[in-house]
Amino acid sequence: MYKIGLVRVLSNFDKNFMNSHGRIIEKNFPNIEVESMAIKDQSEGIHDEETEIIAIPKIIELVKENYTDKDAVIISCAGDPALQELRKEVKVPVIGAGESASLVSKIYGKKVGVVGITKKVPKSYKMIIGDDIVGKPYIEGIENTLDLMKDFGRERALKHCHNLKSLGAEVLVFACTGLSTIKIAPYIEKEIGLKVVDCVYAEGLMAYGACIRRNFYEKIK
Amino acid sequence: MYKIGLVRVLSNFDKNFMNSHGRIIEKNFPNIEVESMAIKDQSEGIHDEETEIIAIPKIIELVKENYTDKDAVIISCAGDPALQELRKEVKVPVIGAGESASLVSKIYGKKVGVVGITKKVPKSYKMIIGDDIVGKPYIEGIENTLDLMKDFGRERALKHCHNLKSLGAEVLVFACTGLSTIKIAPYIEKEIGLKVVDCVYAEGLMAYGACIRRNFYEKIK
Repeated sequence: MYKIGLVRVLSNFDKNFMNSHGRIIEKNFPNIEVESMAIKDQSEGIHDEETEIIAIPKIIELVKENYTDKDAVIISCAGDPALQELRKEVKVPVIGAGESASLVSKIYGKKVGVVGITKKVPKSYKMIIGDDIVGKPYIEGIENTLDLMKDFGRERALKHCHNLKSLGAEVLVFACTGLSTIKIAPYIEKEIGLKVVDCVYAEGLMAYGACIRRNFYEKIK
Repeated sequence: MYKIGLVRVLSNFDKNFMNSHGRIIEKNFPNIEVESMAIKDQSEGIHDEETEIIAIPKIIELVKENYTDKDAVIISCAGDPALQELRKEVKVPVIGAGESASLVSKIYGKKVGVVGITKKVPKSYKMIIGDDIVGKPYIEGIENTLDLMKDFGRERALKHCHNLKSLGAEVLVFACTGLSTIKIAPYIEKEIGLKVVDCVYAEGLMAYGACIRRNFYEKIK
């Protein structure tokens, strides 16, 4: 059994909510056990530079205190807060939702539409997809991840995706794990007709890859 | 059971050899069945621009005639011959060894050492890793994938990796699937102390991701 430690950046300690990303990963990848913990005092999660800056030391502390003996650690936030810092400080492979989704999206199309809630394109998307991003990255009229859970959240997300397709997007990539929480990827794929790369799907795939790597190389000996 | 069609670009029709990449993938990912076929008249595989150009139409024909009903198609060559062409012509997701390895390597380090047999950095590595590539991409004294199977092949590959580490590489990525065939990744990881991204490992992971994507989205509904 591979063990993954997952960091939630929305301070909701209801177990059903906190474990929701981990449950999706456990359901879809074999031999994976995900432990999830949330950082404190971020009731609206991370949705701009300020909320990211205050989250970084909390994430580093959480991982160093709880997850250094895992096979992989996931920071389940598209902004990839503390990702680079942690890679310097811990030996366990650290996977970021944003980096994973950006990387996986490149397989499915050159022109990429970003579906998120921040005015700025999160840093990994900018670095990895860069000039191939079409349109705006944020869903008009959505302030934070909580808005996504309301009825108008789904409608506005869909409208944003239609617009990205009309601008030439060949693939859509989520840039907010709140879109995974509301499980909207299959709905958008069906309505829009483009492949959608969901952040929890991508981080799960990359974390699974990190888990099996050693074993893989053992088996090919 | 997911079905993957895999293209070998070295014209060796011995079943044990032809299926070697597919077998590695089947062993490491659950519910995967890989069918492998090789293109004709390329007894030294693809190792420069000329050998790539003549391979492209053969790969397109092979895939269109045999693999369009698969869940994913893998072109098991780091040069990613025919990858972009096929993505325009077939509906099935097409995975390239070089693109997959380049993308996965970005998770394990910023400065990347490339371990291959071509004087030029293969195109996906150049596009995805670009200025973060350190040193030369090719193993000195290796002419083609057949040389890798000789004793001096392993020695020269190891020497090349030592050199890349001394130049600042934080991760090593293979740029030749012949290095997967000789199963040298675990040996290099142990000797050099850097993570190694093997092409067949990376293409397997990305193809697995393509296979489970639809199912993943079904399950999160």
